[in-house]
Amino acid sequence: MDYLYRMNLINSCSGFKSANLLGTKSNIGNTNVAIFSSVTHIGSNPPLLGFFMRPTTVMRNTYKNIKETGVYTINHIHEEIVHDAHHTSAKYDKSISEFDKTNLEEDYKNGFYAPFVKNVPVQMAMKYLEEYNIKANNTILVVGQISELYIDNSILNSDGFIDLTKAKVSAINGMDAYITPVLKSRLDYQRPK
Amino acid sequence: MDYLYRMNLINSCSGFKSANLLGTKSNIGNTNVAIFSSVTHIGSNPPLLGFFMRPTTVMRNTYKNIKETGVYTINHIHEEIVHDAHHTSAKYDKSISEFDKTNLEEDYKNGFYAPFVKNVPVQMAMKYLEEYNIKANNTILVVGQISELYIDNSILNSDGFIDLTKAKVSAINGMDAYITPVLKSRLDYQRPK
Repeated sequence: MDYLYRMNLINSCSGFKSANLLGTKSNIGNTNVAIFSSVTHIGSNPPLLGFFMRPTTVMRNTYKNIKETGVYTINHIHEEIVHDAHHTSAKYDKSISEFDKTNLEEDYKNGFYAPFVKNVPVQMAMKYLEEYNIKANNTILVVGQISELYIDNSILNSDGFIDLTKAKVSAINGMDAYITPVLKSRLDYQRPK
Repeated sequence: MDYLYRMNLINSCSGFKSANLLGTKSNIGNTNVAIFSSVTHIGSNPPLLGFFMRPTTVMRNTYKNIKETGVYTINHIHEEIVHDAHHTSAKYDKSISEFDKTNLEEDYKNGFYAPFVKNVPVQMAMKYLEEYNIKANNTILVVGQISELYIDNSILNSDGFIDLTKAKVSAINGMDAYITPVLKSRLDYQRPK
């Protein structure tokens, strides 16, 4: 199989993916923001999210900063910032901040060291907890705990449900297709028939 | 925080999630099909997907069957089967197959031991490779390799991209909201500006 064909095929066969920007800052103050489509819910109590990375790609800036400082932010991509978010996939040297190459803006809250992305519907302050080396392909699963959660009030329902569609949060199909889903329905808790 | 509020909040804060049915069969022939929202792309070469599970929940049937047989299937949920797919989250005893309690039908291909779900746009035969115990909350990351991939021809582009929106594949928001995204645009490969 052709390299690009395989990349498109295997990246789009797992289903829709989350669309997030990870914000980090090195210990000498260089900021970085990078797009990830592998942020996954691991558990609610404690609130844990994981993501996968290949340590040899551009995203090593993100990884290096997380290892140096122990903290990072996860920010939701929504319709308005899709093009800038996608551009963070370009391979910049670690001395160059994607915040300077896009209209994405740094946002600091509550003394947290890593930059959030300004004006996005969901921002999370993350504390690095653990990592696992996936032997099968030498990637790394990074596990972090949500320490602060900032949500646009207009999308937070009274039962805790965050309606991502109301904020036009994006989903990713494959490597380059961005989708703004529209909510159809919530279903009931299921018991055996 | 109230238990259900926290569950809704933390399950919906990671972004949109993939919507998949995992098909398995025990070594004495009991089939099982269960919904998962944590299937994640880990790498393209070899083609690897991971998912997270809590070994103490209903999904242990899936896990037990995978450990017994080394194989499972991943099938995409699409609009037509959303209600049946969601119902597989009900806690059935392992002797009861969700295939018997829903309109989902078993599908066998190419001598593969585990059942696919019939008439879904993407079906994958998976070979169990590795697992990692996530110490932070005692969940398990199961890593598998795609050994066979069946895709509805009408959604496979010439460059390998699978247009999930064409087949009305679902995404999940939180624990109970199912969404059928509509494709907006594919963006170009990004190079530094």
